[in-house]
Amino acid sequence: MKSFKLGIAGLGTVGCGVIDIVEELADSLAQKSGKTIEIKTVSAQSKDKERAADISKYEWADNPLDMADDSEIDCIIEVIGGSEGIAKELIEKALANGKAVVSANKALIAYHGPALAELSEEKKVFFGYEAAVAGGIPAVKVLRESLAGNDIQDITAILNGTCNYILSVMRGTGREFDDVLQDAQDLGYAEADPSFDIDGVDAAHKLSILASIAFGRHVDFESVPVAGIRGLDVADISYAEGLGYKVKLLGLASRNAAGRVSLRVEPCLVPEGGQMASVEGVFNAVIYDADPVDRIMLVGRGAGAGPTASAVVSDILDAAQDKLIPVYGCLNARMEPLERDFAKEQMQDESSFYLRLKVIDQPGVVADVTSVLKAHDISISALSQHGRDPGQPVDLIFVTHFGAEGRVRDAVAGLSALPSVLDAPVVLRIQEI
Amino acid sequence: MKSFKLGIAGLGTVGCGVIDIVEELADSLAQKSGKTIEIKTVSAQSKDKERAADISKYEWADNPLDMADDSEIDCIIEVIGGSEGIAKELIEKALANGKAVVSANKALIAYHGPALAELSEEKKVFFGYEAAVAGGIPAVKVLRESLAGNDIQDITAILNGTCNYILSVMRGTGREFDDVLQDAQDLGYAEADPSFDIDGVDAAHKLSILASIAFGRHVDFESVPVAGIRGLDVADISYAEGLGYKVKLLGLASRNAAGRVSLRVEPCLVPEGGQMASVEGVFNAVIYDADPVDRIMLVGRGAGAGPTASAVVSDILDAAQDKLIPVYGCLNARMEPLERDFAKEQMQDESSFYLRLKVIDQPGVVADVTSVLKAHDISISALSQHGRDPGQPVDLIFVTHFGAEGRVRDAVAGLSALPSVLDAPVVLRIQEI
Repeated sequence: MKSFKLGIAGLGTVGCGVIDIVEELADSLAQKSGKTIEIKTVSAQSKDKERAADISKYEWADNPLDMADDSEIDCIIEVIGGSEGIAKELIEKALANGKAVVSANKALIAYHGPALAELSEEKKVFFGYEAAVAGGIPAVKVLRESLAGNDIQDITAILNGTCNYILSVMRGTGREFDDVLQDAQDLGYAEADPSFDIDGVDAAHKLSILASIAFGRHVDFESVPVAGIRGLDVADISYAEGLGYKVKLLGLASRNAAGRVSLRVEPCLVPEGGQMASVEGVFNAVIYDADPVDRIMLVGRGAGAGPTASAVVSDILDAAQDKLIPVYGCLNARMEPLERDFAKEQMQDESSFYLRLKVIDQPGVVADVTSVLKAHDISISALSQHGRDPGQPVDLIFVTHFGAEGRVRDAVAGLSALPSVLDAPVVLRIQEI
Repeated sequence: MKSFKLGIAGLGTVGCGVIDIVEELADSLAQKSGKTIEIKTVSAQSKDKERAADISKYEWADNPLDMADDSEIDCIIEVIGGSEGIAKELIEKALANGKAVVSANKALIAYHGPALAELSEEKKVFFGYEAAVAGGIPAVKVLRESLAGNDIQDITAILNGTCNYILSVMRGTGREFDDVLQDAQDLGYAEADPSFDIDGVDAAHKLSILASIAFGRHVDFESVPVAGIRGLDVADISYAEGLGYKVKLLGLASRNAAGRVSLRVEPCLVPEGGQMASVEGVFNAVIYDADPVDRIMLVGRGAGAGPTASAVVSDILDAAQDKLIPVYGCLNARMEPLERDFAKEQMQDESSFYLRLKVIDQPGVVADVTSVLKAHDISISALSQHGRDPGQPVDLIFVTHFGAEGRVRDAVAGLSALPSVLDAPVVLRIQEI
C-alpha cells in the first residue's frame, strides 16, 4: 500500500488531536483512503513543551517551512493560525511545491482564499479548509459535494458558538450581557478580548467563505454588514420570548431571483419550536435552502479541539485520495468578484422586524409613534406596552409586517427624533426559520 | 476535458430529475469533477410515455442490461427500484464490467449490500447509494467521509417521512391514526399499502445500512427489533405532550463500551424544545454521536424526486472523480457479520419509559400497580391519573427512572395479569435527545 506522509505545523490541542486520530484510526483511514497515512514531521514554536501527544517518534522541524521543501511529505497540516506570517508562508510554499494542504485557519481563508485557490488549481493540488468553517460540522463538504446538483438560494447559519452560548444563558437566566460574557470568559468560551466573536466578525468570516462557495463569487467579507451582540439588552430577549421567539446571532446569505446576492450578520428573532431555536449553547448550525433538495440543516460543535481535529482528518482523507475539487467548488478563474455595497443595496430586502421604543408614558405617545410608522408605510402586526407608569419611561414593542428594511430604518430615524422617544430604538430582524 | 458518460435506468420522477440537473448544471459539474458529465443512454419500460424530461437526444436501450455492456458508458444510474430482478442484475453486471454504479435502491442495498460491496472492491469501481438512505440528507457521505476520524457511538434518526408526517398531524390536530393515514395516502405521502412505512420496515432498512457503516459490521436488518406506529393511540401523543414530550418513530443504533451493538426502530418520546422534536412533517433527521466530534445532526427531506435526484448527482460527482472509498467505509473482507438476537440482548439496555395502563378507577388500584413495579425494581419518576370516574376505566400514566428494558417488560407482563388492568399496557421509550 502506498503511503501518504504528513507534516504537521502547530502542536496545540488541535494539532495533538490530529496526531491522536491518525495514530488510533490508522487502520480504518488506510482502508478508506487506500493509503497508509503517516505523520513524518512535526513543528511548533517549542519542541520541549508538555503536550497531549507523544511527538518523540516523529521528525522535528525547527522551521515549519522546511517541511514544505521535504520531498517525502505529501501533505502539510497548518494548525498554527493567523491570517499573515508563518501560516500563510507555509501554505503558499507547500502549494507551490505541489503538496496538498489542509488548514483550519478561517481568518487566512477569509483574507487570502482566492489567491490560495488560484495556486491550488495551478499546481493541481488539494487545499482543504473544512475545519475553518463551523468546526466539526461538514459545512464545506456538504455544500461543495453533496449539494453539487443544486442551485443554492439561501444560507442561514449560527456560526459563532460564543455568541450562541451567551444568548442561551441570557435567556435561561435573565442575566445581563456583560455578566454572562464574564462567565463565558471564565469558562474559556470567550477570549480575553472577545470583540472578534461578539461583534460578529468571526461569523462574517465564515459566512463569506460559505457564500463564496454557494454563489460562485468571491465575497469580500469586509463589505458584509455586521452587527454583533455586544450590549444586547436582556429585556429584548425577554420581550421576544413573550412573542414566541428566541434571539440568535445569524449569518444570512441569499441570492434572489434576479441574481443579486445579499449578506449580513446580525441578531435575529427566530420562532420557538423551530429548527434554529433548538440550537443552544456553544453549538453551531447551518441551513442551506437549495433547489431541488429543498432545506438541509447541519448542527454540531463549531469549535474545540475534537471537532476541529475531526474536520482536519476528513480533509486529510480527501487529500490522500488526490481529490481535486476546486477550492470554492467552481474554478477560480470563473469566480466573479463581489465587493459591493451590501449595506446600501440590502435596504430593499424585505423582512418583518421587532422594534422596541423607550417612551414617556403619556397621552398621545402611541398616536405619535404610529403616525410616524404610517408615514413610512410600515404596517404593524402586533403592538404592546410593557408597564404603566404615567410620566415615566415604559417600553413599547412593535412587530411589523413584511416590508423593505430601508423603510423601517427611515421610520426608526423619524421615531428617534420624537421628543417622547428616549434612547435609540432597538430594531431586530425576524427570521421565520 | 475527458468525458464521463452515464447510462440511466429508470425514467420516473427521480430519473428525470437527474437528467434535469445533469443538463442544467453541466458546466458547474464539469468544473467540480474535471470531466464533462454526459448522458449517453437511457432506458425504461416504455419509450413513448410522457415524461418531465426530453429524452429524444439520448440513445435508447430497450434492455437496460445492454448499457452494462456498452464500453463507452462509465457509470450506470439505477433508479428502477426493487430488491430483486432487473435492478439487481443491472448493478451486478455493471460492476462486473468495471463500471461505476449509483443507485437509489434501499431495499436492494439492505438485502444485497455486502455482495455488491465485495464486487465493487474486487473490480475497484465506485458504488454509490447516498440516495438510498434519508433521501436528500448526505447521511452516508458525512458518516463515511466527514466522520472518518471518529469513533461512532450512537445513531439516532428519524428515517421515515410518512411516519413523521402522520405523528406530526396527529399531535397537531388530535385526530386518530387511521384517519390521518387516510389523509397521508390522499396526499401521496403514504402508499396504498402503507405497511412498509408505518410498520417501521423502511426505517429498519435505512438504519441497518447506516449502522453497517458506523460500526464496520454487516447488520442483517431482519434481526433488528422493529415496532412501527400502526394503531398508535392519539391519547398517548396527548399525554406525552402533557409531560413535555413529542412522539417520534426513531431508529436507534449504538455501540456500548464493551463493543456490543444494539439496534431498534420504535416510537419514542423526545423532549419538546430538543433537536429531534423540531423535526416535523415529512422531514428526516440523523444524529451521530461520535468521538471526538461529539454530536452532529443532519436534517432534510428524506424522500421525493428533487432530494433523491440531488443525492444521486452527488454520487455521480464522486464516481466521475474515480473515488474509491469502500462501500461501507471499511473493506468488505474486514466487515464482521452481525446477525444476533438483538431483541433478546437489548433487554439489558437501560432507558426510562412511559407506561400507560387502562385501569378500573377503584380503591387500591394504584397500590396494586405500584407494588408490581416495586417487585420488578422499577422506580417511578412521575405518576398521574387522567380522569376520575369510580368503577369506570381511567388512564394511569407512569414515567420510570432509568432501568433495564427487560425489567420493565417483565413488570408490564405482571401488570397485564392484574384483574384491574384492562387492555395491554402501552410502553414507549423516552429518548432525551
